[in-house]
Amino acid sequence: MHVNRISIPPNHPRAKSLHTREALVDGYRRGLVVAEGLIAHGRGEAYDYLIGECTTKTAQRAIKAAAAMLLLSRHPVISVNGNAAALCPGAIVELAKATGAAIEINLFYRTEERERAIKAELETHGAENVLGVGSRASATIPELQSERRRVDPDGIYSADTVFVPLEDGDRTEALVKMGKKVITIDLNPLSRTAKAAHITIVDNIVRAMPALAEAAHQLNGSKSLKRIVDGFDNKKNLRESLKIIRGVI
Amino acid sequence: MHVNRISIPPNHPRAKSLHTREALVDGYRRGLVVAEGLIAHGRGEAYDYLIGECTTKTAQRAIKAAAAMLLLSRHPVISVNGNAAALCPGAIVELAKATGAAIEINLFYRTEERERAIKAELETHGAENVLGVGSRASATIPELQSERRRVDPDGIYSADTVFVPLEDGDRTEALVKMGKKVITIDLNPLSRTAKAAHITIVDNIVRAMPALAEAAHQLNGSKSLKRIVDGFDNKKNLRESLKIIRGVI
Repeated sequence: MHVNRISIPPNHPRAKSLHTREALVDGYRRGLVVAEGLIAHGRGEAYDYLIGECTTKTAQRAIKAAAAMLLLSRHPVISVNGNAAALCPGAIVELAKATGAAIEINLFYRTEERERAIKAELETHGAENVLGVGSRASATIPELQSERRRVDPDGIYSADTVFVPLEDGDRTEALVKMGKKVITIDLNPLSRTAKAAHITIVDNIVRAMPALAEAAHQLNGSKSLKRIVDGFDNKKNLRESLKIIRGVI
Repeated sequence: MHVNRISIPPNHPRAKSLHTREALVDGYRRGLVVAEGLIAHGRGEAYDYLIGECTTKTAQRAIKAAAAMLLLSRHPVISVNGNAAALCPGAIVELAKATGAAIEINLFYRTEERERAIKAELETHGAENVLGVGSRASATIPELQSERRRVDPDGIYSADTVFVPLEDGDRTEALVKMGKKVITIDLNPLSRTAKAAHITIVDNIVRAMPALAEAAHQLNGSKSLKRIVDGFDNKKNLRESLKIIRGVI
């Protein structure tokens, strides 16, 4: 690395975004994140700017529906990539515990070294049984070419609901085709992932993941879970997110 | 690095964008680009998607005006950072030759090692006298806190026109305050840089830089340079770029 660290003034108008960026670069240095993941994060930064860098009411509705869907599922799995592990490992583990979801590592740029680094990071934050590492990812998602096709038979492969924050369009579509319920976090409401998923949270993962864990705690034991899920309209919700972006532009 | 290289299928809908990304990651590996530069590129990718990943007519107008302004200038300087050097070193050198502009390296995350790597990359592509490296950057832009304040007395400090592709808002504003004409390339028409510059090319640098060099060749010796510059309205042009984005969203 060829970087002089600079300090971010606390009164900088975009201090929070800059700190998040530094957390990701730190994850890169620790081998959790790949260079392409930094670029993908930058895309997210641009869309976050366009929705006002806050959790909108539209996103809050999707978060509530997602928490309800995870609580209703028989075998929910949270699919974790490098960026997610670098940005909010604690909230991922908290969400898994609040919903009984399994955690599975699934990487586009897959190496066992990186899988192990991500597993260790999640375990530091309290994860107990991290799926998908190395030879555990022995099942295959049909029609998918990338390394993301390899999944754990005890995890994503047999899941009824898969939560795929920061996903690519190909795999989201493939998981839907397999008959799974898919929840995603995607700041671009026009992306293939956003459109293909059943519930799309148009929000920054650093805000949405803790909010989702909190919502799961609050809804645990609620009798209205099915009503919340059934009342959620993803297409309508995406249209509303687009409206918010249009307001900024 | 912890990456399995993947090949990009030539028929992939976004193959060009993916190749550009790989060029930048390669620049990162060669010490030209910093991790934060990868994130900044990702932001650009998002806005490029929103303008349709093409050089719009609006951008073409700005390119023509920018070429004319550079040709009219007494002492134009092209300010080069790591991302610019990684993405279009040949076009930068070609533009410098076509307009008589000097090339100066100016980095937000400044190290002499990185300056030297960027200088070598530009020289490989034919640059002859690269300014701003090491102790040459002995002058200071007033009111600027970042490392970008340090400039070459023979370059940006004494320039009448500074071309700052991929710039930050603080320095753009400071250069304008110093009385310089400022030209920029910025995919976000809402950014402070885009608004503060005299001519803003809302386009991807990999398309705009060769187009600018080409325009400078074509306009060289033209008698209508002043008319072209005077007839250009940056505010109007930025509004039109926003309209294009609104059409996509």
